[in-house]
Amino acid sequence: MSRTSQTTAGTAGPVLLGPGAHTALRPAAAAAIEGGFWQVRRAVNARAGIPQGPRLLESAGNLHDLRLAAGTAQGDFRGDYPFMDSDVYKWLEAASWQLGQAVPDTGSGPDADAAGGREALVREVDRIIALVADAQQPDGYLNTWFQVTKGGARYQDLRWGHELYCAGHLIQAAVAHHRSTGGKELLRVATRFADHIDTVFGPGKAIESFDGHPEVETALVELYRETGERRYMDLAQFFVDRHGHGVLGGEAYCQDRVPLRDAENVEGHAVRQLYLLAAAADLACETGEAELRAAGERLWHAMTATKTHLTGGVGAHHDKEDFGDPFELPTERAYCETCAAIASIQWSWRMALLTGQARYGDLIERTLFNGVLSGVSLDGETWLYVNPLQIRDGHTDPGGDHSARRTEWFRCACCPPNVMRLLASLEHYMASTDGAGLQIHQYATGRYSGDAAGQPLIVSAHTAYPAAGAATFTVEQTPGDLPWTLSLRIPHWSARFTVRVNGQEVPGAAADEGWLRLERVWAPGDEVALGLDLTPRLTRADPRVDAVRGCVAIERGPLVYCLEQVDHPGGGLDDIVIDPASPLTEHDRPDLLGGVVTIHAAGRRRAAPDSGHWWPYRDAGTAGTSAEDAGGPEEAGAAADPAVPLTAVPYYAWANRQDGSMRVWLPTD
Amino acid sequence: MSRTSQTTAGTAGPVLLGPGAHTALRPAAAAAIEGGFWQVRRAVNARAGIPQGPRLLESAGNLHDLRLAAGTAQGDFRGDYPFMDSDVYKWLEAASWQLGQAVPDTGSGPDADAAGGREALVREVDRIIALVADAQQPDGYLNTWFQVTKGGARYQDLRWGHELYCAGHLIQAAVAHHRSTGGKELLRVATRFADHIDTVFGPGKAIESFDGHPEVETALVELYRETGERRYMDLAQFFVDRHGHGVLGGEAYCQDRVPLRDAENVEGHAVRQLYLLAAAADLACETGEAELRAAGERLWHAMTATKTHLTGGVGAHHDKEDFGDPFELPTERAYCETCAAIASIQWSWRMALLTGQARYGDLIERTLFNGVLSGVSLDGETWLYVNPLQIRDGHTDPGGDHSARRTEWFRCACCPPNVMRLLASLEHYMASTDGAGLQIHQYATGRYSGDAAGQPLIVSAHTAYPAAGAATFTVEQTPGDLPWTLSLRIPHWSARFTVRVNGQEVPGAAADEGWLRLERVWAPGDEVALGLDLTPRLTRADPRVDAVRGCVAIERGPLVYCLEQVDHPGGGLDDIVIDPASPLTEHDRPDLLGGVVTIHAAGRRRAAPDSGHWWPYRDAGTAGTSAEDAGGPEEAGAAADPAVPLTAVPYYAWANRQDGSMRVWLPTD
Repeated sequence: MSRTSQTTAGTAGPVLLGPGAHTALRPAAAAAIEGGFWQVRRAVNARAGIPQGPRLLESAGNLHDLRLAAGTAQGDFRGDYPFMDSDVYKWLEAASWQLGQAVPDTGSGPDADAAGGREALVREVDRIIALVADAQQPDGYLNTWFQVTKGGARYQDLRWGHELYCAGHLIQAAVAHHRSTGGKELLRVATRFADHIDTVFGPGKAIESFDGHPEVETALVELYRETGERRYMDLAQFFVDRHGHGVLGGEAYCQDRVPLRDAENVEGHAVRQLYLLAAAADLACETGEAELRAAGERLWHAMTATKTHLTGGVGAHHDKEDFGDPFELPTERAYCETCAAIASIQWSWRMALLTGQARYGDLIERTLFNGVLSGVSLDGETWLYVNPLQIRDGHTDPGGDHSARRTEWFRCACCPPNVMRLLASLEHYMASTDGAGLQIHQYATGRYSGDAAGQPLIVSAHTAYPAAGAATFTVEQTPGDLPWTLSLRIPHWSARFTVRVNGQEVPGAAADEGWLRLERVWAPGDEVALGLDLTPRLTRADPRVDAVRGCVAIERGPLVYCLEQVDHPGGGLDDIVIDPASPLTEHDRPDLLGGVVTIHAAGRRRAAPDSGHWWPYRDAGTAGTSAEDAGGPEEAGAAADPAVPLTAVPYYAWANRQDGSMRVWLPTD
Repeated sequence: MSRTSQTTAGTAGPVLLGPGAHTALRPAAAAAIEGGFWQVRRAVNARAGIPQGPRLLESAGNLHDLRLAAGTAQGDFRGDYPFMDSDVYKWLEAASWQLGQAVPDTGSGPDADAAGGREALVREVDRIIALVADAQQPDGYLNTWFQVTKGGARYQDLRWGHELYCAGHLIQAAVAHHRSTGGKELLRVATRFADHIDTVFGPGKAIESFDGHPEVETALVELYRETGERRYMDLAQFFVDRHGHGVLGGEAYCQDRVPLRDAENVEGHAVRQLYLLAAAADLACETGEAELRAAGERLWHAMTATKTHLTGGVGAHHDKEDFGDPFELPTERAYCETCAAIASIQWSWRMALLTGQARYGDLIERTLFNGVLSGVSLDGETWLYVNPLQIRDGHTDPGGDHSARRTEWFRCACCPPNVMRLLASLEHYMASTDGAGLQIHQYATGRYSGDAAGQPLIVSAHTAYPAAGAATFTVEQTPGDLPWTLSLRIPHWSARFTVRVNGQEVPGAAADEGWLRLERVWAPGDEVALGLDLTPRLTRADPRVDAVRGCVAIERGPLVYCLEQVDHPGGGLDDIVIDPASPLTEHDRPDLLGGVVTIHAAGRRRAAPDSGHWWPYRDAGTAGTSAEDAGGPEEAGAAADPAVPLTAVPYYAWANRQDGSMRVWLPTD
């Protein structure tokens, strides 16, 4: 039986588990975000982000190249890379999730007509699906780069060709479109390509290798879920299992140095690693394979403990877009590609469903609010590809994809449509059900349904989070006398919380490995009030994170804060020192950056060294010699430094005002 | 008149200034290194490094590709890059300087016959010169990549084509060969290519642009010096002046963003920037142009004050081999290409001659002993392309050119022959004359000649530097009653020194901007004894160098020290903490690493964090909240940490024993 028949509005999200899945949790049966912080971000995505996609895909040449492949246009191929088709597919996926939302955001603003906005989006989606269908070759193959510029050569360069990577994004778009709208045309294109791939790749077939950029693997599991065809999952399993045996050259970059089941830490190209791990988690969810689950848990722990920035961003190297060594977490050269943050969330969500553990929600929250959200401007129209934790005074902006200036589109435009698809499906990462209640992983105003002993239950949530720490949960529907458990994730940063049920404090309420579990027979209208303490705090890093030794970061709830040059006139940020003993105060600033809470601390600005010195290293004066300082900077007494009041803003909102320096980590002396 | 007639053995070095040069100093009229530290390094270079060049150039395909271009061989082009010819030319330059040494090192070892070694080298040089000559096209053009793989297309890709870059190295090789041996064949090839370039490039000519990789500019000034033909210098001036006006796309990478005369700091690809600055200094030396001199002084100051690592290495980014922002000086990702260190020395030497200032010798010394010398193994047979200041525990070696393992040759083999040519001509960076005496820039056992009022003078030097701080200078030849000045550079790291003349302390001896000037009427046999204090010291960085906050480095004299894993069993280096108050002790270890002084300090090893924690950031506990630590590493008391005696070795000698972690900068708590 096809899963399609079970699909309804509200359940049209990613990772709709197959019927025999071996997971602790399942996605909420229905989910909607109906207000608050994320509703605003999603409305911007729906009104400003997604609608501009077709224009940008046209001007960047992606649609032209589809027409070239279809033979309906003439001219030069315009894409710079073999993976340009995937931008189209990711946009189609984003638009499809958007169309599947129970309460579409497209039309609720003053600048868009509700019905008209949605109808226009449907027309654009259908138009672009037709372009994709036209470009497909008779046997199902589809990649404009190889069809147009390589004389139809196929699968000659699996390390860099991205043909299966693009196929994966096509499949994900088709699954999203089918789940959200019931439309079959794109799913037909995708299954034809998948069937073609299944004739070429696999044990005993022409090619027993895999694509250097994982993506098709997780997509094929989703295609299995959507169609019920197990052979798609078998193909995904084949690809995952082939990685790490040197068949593609043995490089970490292509995830071919070591098999996942043997790996000790994440490595190589960050997005490639994380898409592969998402697929492995998909497979573990569906097959229950213990070894693959153990590998996922081990590698997730290693990644978070040793290779994750405070923002949840990952990827230490610009060169090869690579994870670095353990604890190699540079600030100004943090790569933290927006796509890698999204891939991390996709992986963590699958691990959360698989294991039921709260910690995955911790990382998702941190990554969403910081590492992902910094990738899109507040107006939803410009983007960051890399998300560094520091911009120095006098920074030389490289321009292009790696600029610290937000950019309308990139030569390699993987990130913008990736943000669009995540935001358009975000409600599906918020809550889950386990057949005995509902788990709230993320705090957002919305409505989530699950079941207990097969009977439906619905809970609504209201919160001004992350501006405020209070969240109220109201039982909307509950099965008679049956007890069930409402589980609330108590964030790992939370020092203390309060919880009341119908106004009564719950005695001895405590989180158990991150879950506050409230089990009882609920009645409609029952209300749970959670209070998280958002007092601003200073955070420091493991001393092995050399890049931030002697520094602290300001955090408040799930938000990482930063200083921006624009708030600190009179000098640069490179000489700023925070007084870690000074109180942190907060101010509600509805006028600033779309409404933020700013945090204030006392600081000083070190005297700039005498510019007459040509050597920036000097005798430490603590051992050995009492050498006179021949060339080093003068030491100014800290007491003589001018005081500078520090104003921190949420990291996600940086680079929305003017160019200038920025710091997350602040020296304490 | 050709300058060639003035050439004698002992003067065959780089930067033989033209007759009308406007410099404060001139290279020593003759120079020889005759013992001590550098003689050992040069002997290794002469016996192990240079002789293996032809074999490696053959196996890497460079010589094959020359034969392909000449039409004397068949097969595929084997080079991966358009600049492969330059490896051949740099080797020819190295071999030529070697042949020009007054006391050739080639034959003094047990494994080589003196006369036979030199004769074999002459044969190899002549053989390879013939290959080069054969490959040259009738009109003088010569680049195997474009001749063989591009159908003879020329100058179509000045950003990346490296045609003039290769021409520059050909010219430098030809000048070296002619100066050293009087041989004219390679000079004929080089002048034919230079003449061809002069017909194509220049004001009003077919191409009013330049090569994206500077090098031909400094070479053309040398060609002017060697031939007396001023038009070569005019062409160099044209190229230098065209940079920075956007004619080649405007990128900093190609030194085209801003004209040198307007630039505020060094930027872009480090080697490209430094070769261009060397050329600018060459021009300022020859023409006396004040603006170009001022630009050189300004940019040198900015580079050393803000973009130079403790080792003298430069280049912060692997990506684009780029200078980073001011004070962006990462440790594990320090690029510090060996070639960039060599280019820095070439530039500084020209600036030293131009200005007469001692500080250029300070940087040359630091860069020679650390940033350059780490690029070649102690046995002279393997190489490092990048010279990081840290290798972490658990480092994932990338293999290839950027490996932390020394490698026999690289795909991009620019560095090894660059080291060879510098070591083979090193005596010419040691001393200078100004017509009123002799300036000793570097301390090495050797013999240097200059003049005073046109009369020759010779001083010999004896020293065990840098193992010992004593150096003795003996006047070997001096003109009668004429007073002249012996100037000794007092290194910028030196806290104190003593000086005696003929056993008598010189009262009130003090350095004036780095020069200790001893003026008197000298007699043959007069002896000056300089004593530099080499007490080991701890060094720290300007607080804006975020990468090393809270750390110190160990130095002794001009040598930067490092810890290596091999000397610290029982755990990794990432948890090592130095006690900055503990005394630094030294041990003479003639048995270790070719003979080094090791430095010892007290340290401890931080307890490894509990591996159960998945989040490496924790509440700083100093302000705001007293949050309980939900996921961070446990704090262990420093008092409980096990003591670890630290053993530091000179940085230049690292990676000569076994793979493992390494640190220059050591946390103090």
